[in-house]
Amino acid sequence: MTAPLDTVLARADANLPSSLDTLFGLLRIPSVSTDPAHAGDCREAAGALAAYLETLGLAATVRETAGHPVVLARLDGPEGAPHVLFYGHYDVQPVDPLALWTRDPFDPAILTEASGRKIIAARGASDDKGQLMTFVEALRAWREAAGGLPIGVTLLLEGEEECGSVSLPAFLEENKAELQADFAVICDTGMWDAETPSITTSLRGLVGEEVVIRAADRDLHSGGFGGAAANPLHILSAILADLRNADGRITLPGFYDGVEEVPEELKAQWAALSEGRDPLGAVGLSQLSGEVGRSHLELVWARPTAEVNGIAGGYAGAGFKTVIPAEATAKVSFRLVGHQDPEKIRAAFRAHVRDRLPADCSASFADHGGAIAVQMPWDWPVYDGVKAALAQEWPQPPVLVGGGGSIPIVADFRATLGLDSLMVGFSLGDDRVHSPNEKYNLGSFEGGIRSWVRIIAALAE
Amino acid sequence: MTAPLDTVLARADANLPSSLDTLFGLLRIPSVSTDPAHAGDCREAAGALAAYLETLGLAATVRETAGHPVVLARLDGPEGAPHVLFYGHYDVQPVDPLALWTRDPFDPAILTEASGRKIIAARGASDDKGQLMTFVEALRAWREAAGGLPIGVTLLLEGEEECGSVSLPAFLEENKAELQADFAVICDTGMWDAETPSITTSLRGLVGEEVVIRAADRDLHSGGFGGAAANPLHILSAILADLRNADGRITLPGFYDGVEEVPEELKAQWAALSEGRDPLGAVGLSQLSGEVGRSHLELVWARPTAEVNGIAGGYAGAGFKTVIPAEATAKVSFRLVGHQDPEKIRAAFRAHVRDRLPADCSASFADHGGAIAVQMPWDWPVYDGVKAALAQEWPQPPVLVGGGGSIPIVADFRATLGLDSLMVGFSLGDDRVHSPNEKYNLGSFEGGIRSWVRIIAALAE
Repeated sequence: MTAPLDTVLARADANLPSSLDTLFGLLRIPSVSTDPAHAGDCREAAGALAAYLETLGLAATVRETAGHPVVLARLDGPEGAPHVLFYGHYDVQPVDPLALWTRDPFDPAILTEASGRKIIAARGASDDKGQLMTFVEALRAWREAAGGLPIGVTLLLEGEEECGSVSLPAFLEENKAELQADFAVICDTGMWDAETPSITTSLRGLVGEEVVIRAADRDLHSGGFGGAAANPLHILSAILADLRNADGRITLPGFYDGVEEVPEELKAQWAALSEGRDPLGAVGLSQLSGEVGRSHLELVWARPTAEVNGIAGGYAGAGFKTVIPAEATAKVSFRLVGHQDPEKIRAAFRAHVRDRLPADCSASFADHGGAIAVQMPWDWPVYDGVKAALAQEWPQPPVLVGGGGSIPIVADFRATLGLDSLMVGFSLGDDRVHSPNEKYNLGSFEGGIRSWVRIIAALAE
Repeated sequence: MTAPLDTVLARADANLPSSLDTLFGLLRIPSVSTDPAHAGDCREAAGALAAYLETLGLAATVRETAGHPVVLARLDGPEGAPHVLFYGHYDVQPVDPLALWTRDPFDPAILTEASGRKIIAARGASDDKGQLMTFVEALRAWREAAGGLPIGVTLLLEGEEECGSVSLPAFLEENKAELQADFAVICDTGMWDAETPSITTSLRGLVGEEVVIRAADRDLHSGGFGGAAANPLHILSAILADLRNADGRITLPGFYDGVEEVPEELKAQWAALSEGRDPLGAVGLSQLSGEVGRSHLELVWARPTAEVNGIAGGYAGAGFKTVIPAEATAKVSFRLVGHQDPEKIRAAFRAHVRDRLPADCSASFADHGGAIAVQMPWDWPVYDGVKAALAQEWPQPPVLVGGGGSIPIVADFRATLGLDSLMVGFSLGDDRVHSPNEKYNLGSFEGGIRSWVRIIAALAE
């Protein structure tokens, strides 16, 4: 345990061929969690992981849940050393449409692209088998080179992340004591680019709402009623248009309660990251929408928003029908940041709708879930060592980034276990996660293992 | 031809049993114009009508068009008498859903309702076979009681009204000379109520537009792009909401050009008609929408409007999808009055959309047709005699009404033949036109024949 860091890194490098062998064995198991036909494969993946962790000297078990099992493994560190709860998932997305894959998604291979870049091609190579194995192989290097770990770890590897982690909250609740740690570590995020590692410090929360506006008790002919009878499509349009003002701010009263400004230092760092980039060019857009005066990264990482995700009402098929429909519906979601309260925002949205409803019309609502945002302190002391470790490994210094979407487990760790989460990962924007021909750069795998070797050392200090 | 009016009316009354026989024969022919399987039935109906008109002494022919044939029949009046072009249609709507009919739609019968009201039950009893036969049977009474007509008539009975009158404009154009008349007479409208006849003096025009708003070149995940990328559902909502201001007026520049105020006298008449009525109660609404400060009848008969008839975009199925869609679409129609120009309004709508489009988004449009409004002069001298004739026949004096919808043939008569149209009809709001269990009141049939007998006399003066 007193081996110099270079010895552990050298061991990790020497292990690489067998590390890839282990990863390939895991990638060959089609652990598609959402498809009941693959339930046995999920169990096989869990068993294989537990068995492998046992060979590394961890106390590993496959634990039952209401759904696919969880792998739990533990290795204590020296007395007084920090103990972390590492989270990853062994399940993968379905492979449809299979015809778009250039090779069998469950027959992993190292391919060399025209650019010379080497990639690991397989479903789950990046999300999340390759990523979770970077941490496992770092543990192995420490064990083999130093006889043990300088920190304590508990590994929690679930099998339902790709189908909503439905069994996990109950598992956390039931195993609170066993899962105690100083903080959580998650390897399910990405790098800024292939040379620049990143630490994800926040994830946006979400409120999902569906509203149905009802006017007349039947569809009406616009000849006989147009201009006199309430049209729910007009009412809905006005309700949705009114959600944002001319400056792109959301108009719900109290909406920005709990939203904090990003520190100037971080804003400057994000501005530098964006420099010379065309963030929306890849999807055919050329200008930012939403709140004026905010940078692209601020908008998607650190600002809340309201988005209409679907509208339906009246006749939208081929041709034309001069109908005033009886009802119209919209699905609306709010992305949350900081300490915004999902239920307060849901209530404010419903009040916004009701306030704009003619007296003879009605609205009904469906709750499509809510999740708080997670925001680690930007100056969390843990980051200092992690940043220094990542800076040693990669060509560019690490950046603190936000996540525009949600990883519900992060909120659960905080709510149930009281744990903050350190989110570091090595996937890249072109990994085709959830899509055909998923890959993980060989450089991400190798650099990921070496990064964790360094981070583990840093966390011990 | 010098028989007193009472003699002709008595003849019409005496004819009633055989008038019903003739109508029933026509109702037994399932002349559903939209269904190719019934093309032979349409031709049979045309032939039956032409043959019957021949027996009445008219020169009648079945004339080919690109679609179902037209019946053309003519009987000249005395030298110097007015000549009118009567329009009706022998085709009917489909009968689906057949299961909702209480009897065979093509087996007409006179039924007595619980209230004692006698009705003619059959598809087409009201729309338009029963109505057109009121005019034909009035001609018969005049011929039989007076040896001829005090006015000249050309009958134009088409077979494609229920499927868009697609062949009729060309037929009018090709037969202009033959169709010359002083004005047109149309029996395809209704009474205000069972005691109050009405003359329809205007019909609203229509502009149909479809717009598709496109933003990103693919659907986006709202986690990664929400708040930064343009959302076409928001853009569309704002565009549609902006079509009306807080007073319910349409905001398109120049929209109200050509809209005339209803004369105060008529407004007062309409206000009296509405007195004590709850015009929207039957459809579950309790308050007027649209332009403030206008009565219900003014809104639907004499004011233009914009209605959204359909919206679609994003995910609107079960559950929820946090998508920012690539595109969103709406169908919008404008009801026109007075001299509003459909193409100017279409252009104004397209400009309204383009003005509200972010620079990196696009809009495309589909033209779903346009028709000018028709507005007869409220003080057309023809109305004086017609009003007096109707006042003699019915318990309540006639009222001048508007029509909220369109009858395209009326605009065609004006555009192609230069003819104004006298619109008088005897259908009632509960006739279930286009629906299962269509009926025509026996009182409408009998009173309709007698009304035309009187109107023909009045027009001769």
